[in-house]
Amino acid sequence: MGEFDLIARYFTRPARRAALGVGDDCALLQPRPGHQLAISSDMLVAGCHFFPDVDPRALGHKSLAVNLSDLAACGAQPLAFTLALALPEVNEPWLAAFADGLLALADAHGCELVGGDTTAGPLNICITVFGEVPAPGGRSQALLRSGAHAGDDIYVSGTLGDARLALDALLGKADLPADVLAQARQRLEQPTPRVTLGLALRGIASAAIDVSDGLLGDLGHILECSGIGATVNVDSASSLIAASACSTGARGQFSINLSEVQRRLLTLCGGDDYELLFTAPTAMRSAVAAAAQTAHTPVTRIGQIDAAPGLRLMDHQGQAVPNTYASFDHFA
Amino acid sequence: MGEFDLIARYFTRPARRAALGVGDDCALLQPRPGHQLAISSDMLVAGCHFFPDVDPRALGHKSLAVNLSDLAACGAQPLAFTLALALPEVNEPWLAAFADGLLALADAHGCELVGGDTTAGPLNICITVFGEVPAPGGRSQALLRSGAHAGDDIYVSGTLGDARLALDALLGKADLPADVLAQARQRLEQPTPRVTLGLALRGIASAAIDVSDGLLGDLGHILECSGIGATVNVDSASSLIAASACSTGARGQFSINLSEVQRRLLTLCGGDDYELLFTAPTAMRSAVAAAAQTAHTPVTRIGQIDAAPGLRLMDHQGQAVPNTYASFDHFA
Repeated sequence: MGEFDLIARYFTRPARRAALGVGDDCALLQPRPGHQLAISSDMLVAGCHFFPDVDPRALGHKSLAVNLSDLAACGAQPLAFTLALALPEVNEPWLAAFADGLLALADAHGCELVGGDTTAGPLNICITVFGEVPAPGGRSQALLRSGAHAGDDIYVSGTLGDARLALDALLGKADLPADVLAQARQRLEQPTPRVTLGLALRGIASAAIDVSDGLLGDLGHILECSGIGATVNVDSASSLIAASACSTGARGQFSINLSEVQRRLLTLCGGDDYELLFTAPTAMRSAVAAAAQTAHTPVTRIGQIDAAPGLRLMDHQGQAVPNTYASFDHFA
Repeated sequence: MGEFDLIARYFTRPARRAALGVGDDCALLQPRPGHQLAISSDMLVAGCHFFPDVDPRALGHKSLAVNLSDLAACGAQPLAFTLALALPEVNEPWLAAFADGLLALADAHGCELVGGDTTAGPLNICITVFGEVPAPGGRSQALLRSGAHAGDDIYVSGTLGDARLALDALLGKADLPADVLAQARQRLEQPTPRVTLGLALRGIASAAIDVSDGLLGDLGHILECSGIGATVNVDSASSLIAASACSTGARGQFSINLSEVQRRLLTLCGGDDYELLFTAPTAMRSAVAAAAQTAHTPVTRIGQIDAAPGLRLMDHQGQAVPNTYASFDHFA
């Protein structure tokens, strides 16, 4: 199967919202009047972001999910994406499953594949995603990292830690019961981008980012971009430990017992969670609760933005906790 | 040096035309009213698209040039791009030179780096480029592959064959004098995207594509998308053999002597030329000539579009020439 047959068979569908889709030198997109295009690009490399033998359907899902998560963090409505794919070989069952996983998530979000590139090479998936954000009169409603103010609450959606727990188990660094691993692995391999929550938070959140490198590291980006500091209650954060990590097993007991140290590590610097971390003025507490309800996504308050720069950690008793948590860095 | 320092040092500059550039979850772009966004994505893999030891400045140039060439083929004005980069290691001199070559070409075209991704992995460069095309009342002025009609002339810009000649020499398949190789290699490693010509051809050309896989292969895409056929004069096409291949050497002689067979191979299926291949009604001949003059880019008429499907080759005497020319396919 040649390059052009491959594109035609697995990745070409008629253009829907795009003015022109797959098959020309360029795709053509026209955002609605009064809207901006939000653009994000993520590259996934075999052996770095995923195990080379990962289920290709899950990989297709995750490749788009991590990009949709960036749109969610901007409060953007998914519109379209391009896919550039380097493949070591043409493996048709693999490609069919990859395309299935990818396009199922794309369809669920009305996000159209409009173009891209395929080439030979070590397995590498690069997706660039496009979303729409209202910008009436040029005033963008996008959620940015730079909008947090002193006094704002800090929130996280959903739960944290499962992806890292699964990764540690798959790397042989942790021993997990099969049922726990299966649940945690689902979060690692098929994360849910919080698109609906991101949309619901427009006009409510003051700043937002998605949790990909680890909660504290990603909060650091908000602090830096907003030029402020924060105090995080590590007990509130570690209470977000994912259901699978402390769920009751078949015999009504905890499947695994994590120490407080482990919980803190998994939640504060686990990474790959794709939850939304956001700030909002205290006057918006009921609006945040309503947005969470609209999006069917729980959110938890874990701290407060401070005028003083720097990140401070404390526990439920208000005691300072030393910050010994490093977030993920591809080159560190 | 960590991932975020690397982005800050080499790839972050203040946003200019973009509403928001590098450093948030998404970049924000707003095409002017009445304009569409043309989008194209190309992935370059070490060992497949370039030699791993290629000059990083040239590689930075080429990575963006092949994408700008797609915008040129659409008649789109470059606006912005994202860069996703997988690096086997952080090599600062390499990165500085790569960024220099990349951003020099970007600046020459007013094309702003607005975001992207960096990660560890086998060297891979994925650029997604954005251009603007007028679409008054939703009627796009983009040049498409699908617009050719029976009777239209077929044109190619500039010269062909140098890139393939250099590649053959670097692979040890051809022996070239140093001066010829240096010239040919310049075309292989630092191609000139025909952006100005593409813009000048809006409203004149009926269809266009850039020559990346080889002249006849890329013409095949126009024929397929337009549902028509063509007759190409292979002597006209092979007269486009690049200057370096038959230039007079220091002593006033041809540096190399290519046979007619070699000239045809290099021009008809060389690949990596990044010239524009386009069609235009015969009534547009003087308009095409004027556009070529405006863009300071010579164009040559090499054939005619036919109503009958299929691609026919003939020589200057009008004799049929068998089509034994295969174009490039990453998986063939």
